[in-house]
Amino acid sequence: MSADESAATMHVIPADECHRLLATQEIGRLGVNAEHFPIIVPVNYAMDGTTIVIRTQPGSKLTAAQHANVAFEVDEIDRRTRSGWSVLVRALAEEVGEEHRADLVARTHATGVEPWAPGEHGHWLRLIPQEISGRRIVPGELPPAVDPRAYL
Amino acid sequence: MSADESAATMHVIPADECHRLLATQEIGRLGVNAEHFPIIVPVNYAMDGTTIVIRTQPGSKLTAAQHANVAFEVDEIDRRTRSGWSVLVRALAEEVGEEHRADLVARTHATGVEPWAPGEHGHWLRLIPQEISGRRIVPGELPPAVDPRAYL
Repeated sequence: MSADESAATMHVIPADECHRLLATQEIGRLGVNAEHFPIIVPVNYAMDGTTIVIRTQPGSKLTAAQHANVAFEVDEIDRRTRSGWSVLVRALAEEVGEEHRADLVARTHATGVEPWAPGEHGHWLRLIPQEISGRRIVPGELPPAVDPRAYL
Repeated sequence: MSADESAATMHVIPADECHRLLATQEIGRLGVNAEHFPIIVPVNYAMDGTTIVIRTQPGSKLTAAQHANVAFEVDEIDRRTRSGWSVLVRALAEEVGEEHRADLVARTHATGVEPWAPGEHGHWLRLIPQEISGRRIVPGELPPAVDPRAYL
């Protein structure tokens, strides 16, 4: 079996369904390349059409995300049945600033999204999707759950 | 307020507590640099001491993780109260193969961890932590939840 055939068993989710699923959640994980290792952090987000809107604090590590290629992952996984879905977006991150049109700034702020951590008002970041993909895990296809604590 | 003072409000979790929290979950997100964008995928995992054990399918995009700097993130977030924690591990990924000592191979296999997707038996990957950090979000410090669907 080739690698492509193997991947075909993974229940690929079409792009329009991926976009619909993105709008059902409010917490995602942002991935940024920084200091030789990727960074992954959970963030609160909102949608402006197909654009993902998040906020970051000044001085945070997510500053590396500005004007960069980022990944944004959202999933909903039921630990009990070990089923669910995962959507991955490859996006260009851009900070919303004075160079943007007023209506875009207004739409961005209207999402009302707030950063997770308390503190100063953060930067507004828009993640413009370049590529979106998703996969669904169907119950019953998974091996029995393993409790990792049993082996420590 | 400087960036450092701002970051200090984020309730840093000590390393030993991070390791303890890792052992309480079985699903994490693996981040790998691939094709200019990071990739983030949810994976099933188990612990062998402080080493994270996962499996990947031959031919999957996670092949890029082998012998690479990866990120591994685990969290537990309550959407209702918007509280929880997140632990981030920067790790070196290595595939378990014939060059490893028999006891290490045996310990790795004894974790019993299975890949998420059905199909062929996968490669065993060990993620050796290089750096671990975590933060805790305390209830009551977050702004009111926003339903992103209200703005689409």
